[in-house]
Amino acid sequence: MTTTEQPAHADVGFGRRPRVEDARFLRGKGQYVDDITLPGMLHGAILRSPHAHARIVSIDTSEAEAHPKVKAVITGATLESLKLAWIPSLSHDVIAVLATDKVRYQGQEVAFVVAEDRYSARDALELIDVDYDVLDPVIDAQRALDPGAPVIRDDIEGKADNHIFDWTAGDKDQTDAAFASAEVVVKQDMLYPRVHPAPLETCGSVAWMDPVSGKLTIWCTTQAPHAHRTLYALVAGLPEQKIRVVSPDIGGGFGNKVGIYPGYVLSVVGSIVTGAPVKWVEDRSENLVSTSFARDYHMHGEIAATRDGRILGLRVDVLADHGAFNNTAQPTKYPAGFFHIFTGSYDYPAAYCTVKGVYTNKAPGGVAYACSFRVTEACYLVERIVDCLADELGMDPAELRMKNLLRPERFPYLSPTGWEYDSGEYPRALAKAMEMAGYEQLRKEQAEKRARGELMGIGVSFFTETVGAGPRKHMDILGLGMADGAEVRVHPTGKAVVRLSVQTQGQGHETTFAQIVSEVTGIPSADIEVVHGDTDNTPFGLGTYGSRSTPVSGAAVAVASRRIVDKARLIASAMLEVSPEDLEWDRGKFFVKGDPSTAKTIQEIAFASHGTQELPEGVEGHLDAECVYDPPNLTYPFGAYICVVDVDKGTGQVKVRRFIAVDDCGPRINPMIVEGQVHGGLADGVGMALMEVIAFDEEGNCLGGSFMDYQLPTALECPSWELGETVTPSPHHPLGLKGVGESATVGSPPAVVNAVIDALKPYGVRHVDMPLTPAQVWRAMQGRPFRTDLAITDE
Amino acid sequence: MTTTEQPAHADVGFGRRPRVEDARFLRGKGQYVDDITLPGMLHGAILRSPHAHARIVSIDTSEAEAHPKVKAVITGATLESLKLAWIPSLSHDVIAVLATDKVRYQGQEVAFVVAEDRYSARDALELIDVDYDVLDPVIDAQRALDPGAPVIRDDIEGKADNHIFDWTAGDKDQTDAAFASAEVVVKQDMLYPRVHPAPLETCGSVAWMDPVSGKLTIWCTTQAPHAHRTLYALVAGLPEQKIRVVSPDIGGGFGNKVGIYPGYVLSVVGSIVTGAPVKWVEDRSENLVSTSFARDYHMHGEIAATRDGRILGLRVDVLADHGAFNNTAQPTKYPAGFFHIFTGSYDYPAAYCTVKGVYTNKAPGGVAYACSFRVTEACYLVERIVDCLADELGMDPAELRMKNLLRPERFPYLSPTGWEYDSGEYPRALAKAMEMAGYEQLRKEQAEKRARGELMGIGVSFFTETVGAGPRKHMDILGLGMADGAEVRVHPTGKAVVRLSVQTQGQGHETTFAQIVSEVTGIPSADIEVVHGDTDNTPFGLGTYGSRSTPVSGAAVAVASRRIVDKARLIASAMLEVSPEDLEWDRGKFFVKGDPSTAKTIQEIAFASHGTQELPEGVEGHLDAECVYDPPNLTYPFGAYICVVDVDKGTGQVKVRRFIAVDDCGPRINPMIVEGQVHGGLADGVGMALMEVIAFDEEGNCLGGSFMDYQLPTALECPSWELGETVTPSPHHPLGLKGVGESATVGSPPAVVNAVIDALKPYGVRHVDMPLTPAQVWRAMQGRPFRTDLAITDE
Repeated sequence: MTTTEQPAHADVGFGRRPRVEDARFLRGKGQYVDDITLPGMLHGAILRSPHAHARIVSIDTSEAEAHPKVKAVITGATLESLKLAWIPSLSHDVIAVLATDKVRYQGQEVAFVVAEDRYSARDALELIDVDYDVLDPVIDAQRALDPGAPVIRDDIEGKADNHIFDWTAGDKDQTDAAFASAEVVVKQDMLYPRVHPAPLETCGSVAWMDPVSGKLTIWCTTQAPHAHRTLYALVAGLPEQKIRVVSPDIGGGFGNKVGIYPGYVLSVVGSIVTGAPVKWVEDRSENLVSTSFARDYHMHGEIAATRDGRILGLRVDVLADHGAFNNTAQPTKYPAGFFHIFTGSYDYPAAYCTVKGVYTNKAPGGVAYACSFRVTEACYLVERIVDCLADELGMDPAELRMKNLLRPERFPYLSPTGWEYDSGEYPRALAKAMEMAGYEQLRKEQAEKRARGELMGIGVSFFTETVGAGPRKHMDILGLGMADGAEVRVHPTGKAVVRLSVQTQGQGHETTFAQIVSEVTGIPSADIEVVHGDTDNTPFGLGTYGSRSTPVSGAAVAVASRRIVDKARLIASAMLEVSPEDLEWDRGKFFVKGDPSTAKTIQEIAFASHGTQELPEGVEGHLDAECVYDPPNLTYPFGAYICVVDVDKGTGQVKVRRFIAVDDCGPRINPMIVEGQVHGGLADGVGMALMEVIAFDEEGNCLGGSFMDYQLPTALECPSWELGETVTPSPHHPLGLKGVGESATVGSPPAVVNAVIDALKPYGVRHVDMPLTPAQVWRAMQGRPFRTDLAITDE
Repeated sequence: MTTTEQPAHADVGFGRRPRVEDARFLRGKGQYVDDITLPGMLHGAILRSPHAHARIVSIDTSEAEAHPKVKAVITGATLESLKLAWIPSLSHDVIAVLATDKVRYQGQEVAFVVAEDRYSARDALELIDVDYDVLDPVIDAQRALDPGAPVIRDDIEGKADNHIFDWTAGDKDQTDAAFASAEVVVKQDMLYPRVHPAPLETCGSVAWMDPVSGKLTIWCTTQAPHAHRTLYALVAGLPEQKIRVVSPDIGGGFGNKVGIYPGYVLSVVGSIVTGAPVKWVEDRSENLVSTSFARDYHMHGEIAATRDGRILGLRVDVLADHGAFNNTAQPTKYPAGFFHIFTGSYDYPAAYCTVKGVYTNKAPGGVAYACSFRVTEACYLVERIVDCLADELGMDPAELRMKNLLRPERFPYLSPTGWEYDSGEYPRALAKAMEMAGYEQLRKEQAEKRARGELMGIGVSFFTETVGAGPRKHMDILGLGMADGAEVRVHPTGKAVVRLSVQTQGQGHETTFAQIVSEVTGIPSADIEVVHGDTDNTPFGLGTYGSRSTPVSGAAVAVASRRIVDKARLIASAMLEVSPEDLEWDRGKFFVKGDPSTAKTIQEIAFASHGTQELPEGVEGHLDAECVYDPPNLTYPFGAYICVVDVDKGTGQVKVRRFIAVDDCGPRINPMIVEGQVHGGLADGVGMALMEVIAFDEEGNCLGGSFMDYQLPTALECPSWELGETVTPSPHHPLGLKGVGESATVGSPPAVVNAVIDALKPYGVRHVDMPLTPAQVWRAMQGRPFRTDLAITDE
């Protein structure tokens, strides 16, 4: 039982409660994109480039068109005439839906076949004859800017290199001075390799452009249906009021499903061309090879400190590999603000960062996979280099952290990059994690094992996230601001519906958003229906990513619910013939102060509002309220993690034995769901630390094209998680909530890596790049770790 | 070109414009209930009583259940256990979904079969063995209260007769005094026979109770989806937030589709019992025999006047035949307020009315078929008796009307029954109709023809309607008040959606409501999508009937649109950095007063509201607005009609040669649609006057069970309508609109009947009951007309 948990009672408000959506998920009755079948529906398949870099000489589709079951073969030429040649992208890059001049990465879309069934569409792909003039690929980000490197984006006028941008943050002079005065400086290169969110469900869409009504309906695997709709309207000029984007049940997103993929556009084009609904669903290999990857940050960190462990400064230099295009959360034309809280959770007097973006012949990265503005990469860098510093100083890494963590009195804290952390009690969280772990005892055990020659490691990490994208006037997507709408309608019988601008990819919104309404209005959450994921049915908002559902949309729902209560007070005052101030609110009912027997329940008030009750001046009928919430600031959840590993000396195999995670995301709507989110993120972290990487060979072949190659953690690799919490409410969220969706994914990889490197201390290892596969660990023990992003070894 | 018509321009605002919905209707692409097909859907059929009055001794369903394709056979017993035994009725009567004790009219529902296909379901009906003990039926309303008449409603405790209520209105003493002082008194009995709205589409529903989510979706032919939802929740206890009622394209309603029919409930029960979706669709005969009829008013009128034609008083006595139950707009427990403006359009010093309701063994009537609170029947009575008076006085009926019509200075006019007519310029409308008709010339022509022995008639009628049901605190359905919600959302690109609580049965709401938004906001109407007919998608409201869409829901939309403009002004003031008062509104844009070059269009403002524009204090993002409109009063459209007929002396065949209709419904949103509505209503009037009647034989068999028996007018029976308008805005509607859906149906039957009787003047005929079929006219010429409601003649 943790602090925000409440005793089980009549299904009202916050508390541990089964997920509503599991009724269908557990029975296999979810409705995913691939479950949607429309009368007369056709099926599409995409022809993809086998080359990483090649000029397209010609495309001959005649044989495919002659296939008896093929209805259309679409190339770039078809798209041009429909004004749908370019992806409505959230970045400012210009990305062709189908390549026409060159292919720039393996798996890039070249043509689209629409046929009567999926099998015929696939078969016909083989009948398309593309003549490629193969070019040298640029695979190594560190060599992308070499003079003479092939220019990938020769489609951009005047572009003669692979450079995208340079960006800096912090105060260079101040940081140089801090380093000059330091007693100790530690430097370390490190790679956060390409990883893939690998959601359970791949991407897909069903598009239906009704030729009679002109209405375009797109069911697709998107985390941001409203953004998609407006982008189609802005970029392709389709009439916004005639576009409906539906995000049905989604089998995981993790940022992989934020942007618009060529396949979505192609299903739309397919429907326009054939006059029939068209379904397109990726297979696993297509998802892994061609949809947005994450990370691929080549980082160099330097930390300056006093000999007694007071951190003085941080210097970071990053080479960001964007792949061939700038996708989704990876902007082109403005600096990558996405590394903005690179300083993490510590109290640095000075910090400075540079980021350089480059193009390579790889699929576009930039997916917001628990990225929360690149906090994942930054947190990894900081937490690793703090461990390197501890090693250098001979200090316990937990002690070094405790010494330098931001103290509660520093909040609201203005970071060296100008971001204001809202609230935090960092030392309390770390102390709690250490207590839960039995930290001292663990160190004793480690010492004993080391003495016996056994490799046990203890890894500590601390993270601060920055989530809840807004405020609207500071952040935008193609000019659209980050405000979320919410509507609460109480029906005549006192049941309610809440409509959200965000939607779920499995996070349990149908449960938690009902609980928010319930918490405020007192209506049992079982009486509240949550509607989301359908632009026809929900208020505008830019979608679910960056853990923003609870901080922004949750706030919108809370405010709308409060407006319901405010309106209910006025109606109750008319019903009871007293002034509104004379009423007392006892969650779910109003009564005349001092006389609970006069109570009018929210249900009675709802009926009266739809009935014939005389209403006070200026109060309209029905019990509805709306809110468009513009967050005054981001929220800053945080946490302290401790990981305990054993490493097999002979094979390099890492066993995560224990994992203690103390998360502080403010009050918890439904502690069970928070724990589920944390469990998932911790498994992510184990995967990224130990197993996952998308590497490329010299020809630019993607080496992670199946789950045989791209390893994901299973229950076997995960320990029984040990979770704890502290509660530091956000001062600016109406209910103090902060969001937790990405926390564990951000915080856990450095804990695991720190633990493994701690285990390898006897071998003098200070750093090894992820993933720490048995081979990598074994080679690190030999003093010659791999470079994990390329299939190039020194063997 | 009439006064409110506007020059064709950029698709903004009111004006003549093609109907948006015709794109699908004309191509046969409408989606009606019977077009809905769900996976695994089953089909239901209803077993109906062959008797008008019989006790049910037993029902044996075993053979039907054994049919290999039958999935369920449902009787009253099944319903009891599901709490769905009673129809959630809009009246306060208790009507069984399936008869258990007795059947009370021919066609009453007795059992329901659910089978794999429609044919098997129908076949299995014949396998159900019902043992009936046949009772004497009560068919003649005028004998229903005879001592010893069989008691129909012995299900009501203590009920020993067929009496329902007595109701009076007006001042009896004052009226008696007026009559005592009169120089002339004319008395006339008349029948407004049973007629049927006979919509093109019969009733039907598809119900799907999803056993996983618990969500009940009902697609049904209803004019009032929200009312249906709440009634299911109130009566059956189903959770309101889990019920979705969808009214898809509807092929005409005319009041026939307001209430809940047993078939709807049975499809719900069928789905609950079988776990599959269940479709039920009536055939034509079922629709004619068992769904709500209209009228069946046996009326006695008396009018008192001075010798020079000043009307002094009106006395009305009505026997209202309700059939076996009180349905929909036919209340049981409170007086029939539905005859409330029985005095019509004239300035009576005194009026008094009594209405007595009785049960008969006929299908329940009470449908709101252009009933607008029984104005249809009242208008007929008044317009006929005024003609009788003119005949008695030897005055021209138009002249008599002109003399007694309410004069403009009498408005707002408080009627003898206490209703406040909002606005009117009655003499202007009549004068315009007479001018259009060339009234004097017509009378000359008639005189010439009469001289030649030809039968030509000229009929005049004037009507006042009372529509736009509200205000919410004065009118209710089971406690639910008459307020309508509307929501307008302007998307980022400046396109908009408007969500209505009402929906259409063919009236063109998708066109006209977009025009209302356009009129106020300046957004082109082609950029505005209208959403309606789906409780999941639209704000609460009690539906479309009594011509209330424009007066109530149209007002809600207008007010919400004004709120959009008000909000846009504030946002524009921030964009232009001036105070809101310094802005000028030029429909569609704001500019700084005196400088049109500064204009910000509504589209630019919409984008800014969704973007990063700083907003004024208290203004939330997005450009949305809502309104729940509670009308301060009803609206009172009116009109003057003139009909010219020729009657064949040999056969009694009536030919409507001309029909002049001047309607005043305030400003016209789309004159073309208004004219279409008027055309339809005029055809209704020709049908009712000349052809339509649902009669019964002595055993209670319904004699109007097919379109072979129940004659509807076709283009052959209709002249080329001559339409005119006057414009008297409603002072309390935000745009002055009044509603026109029922006007012509109310006003036209007396014009036709008056014309025929005028033609028959040479035969000394003062009154003949509708319908004026050739046989009836011929017999009237012989001095012995039929009683049209019974299949009993003197032959």
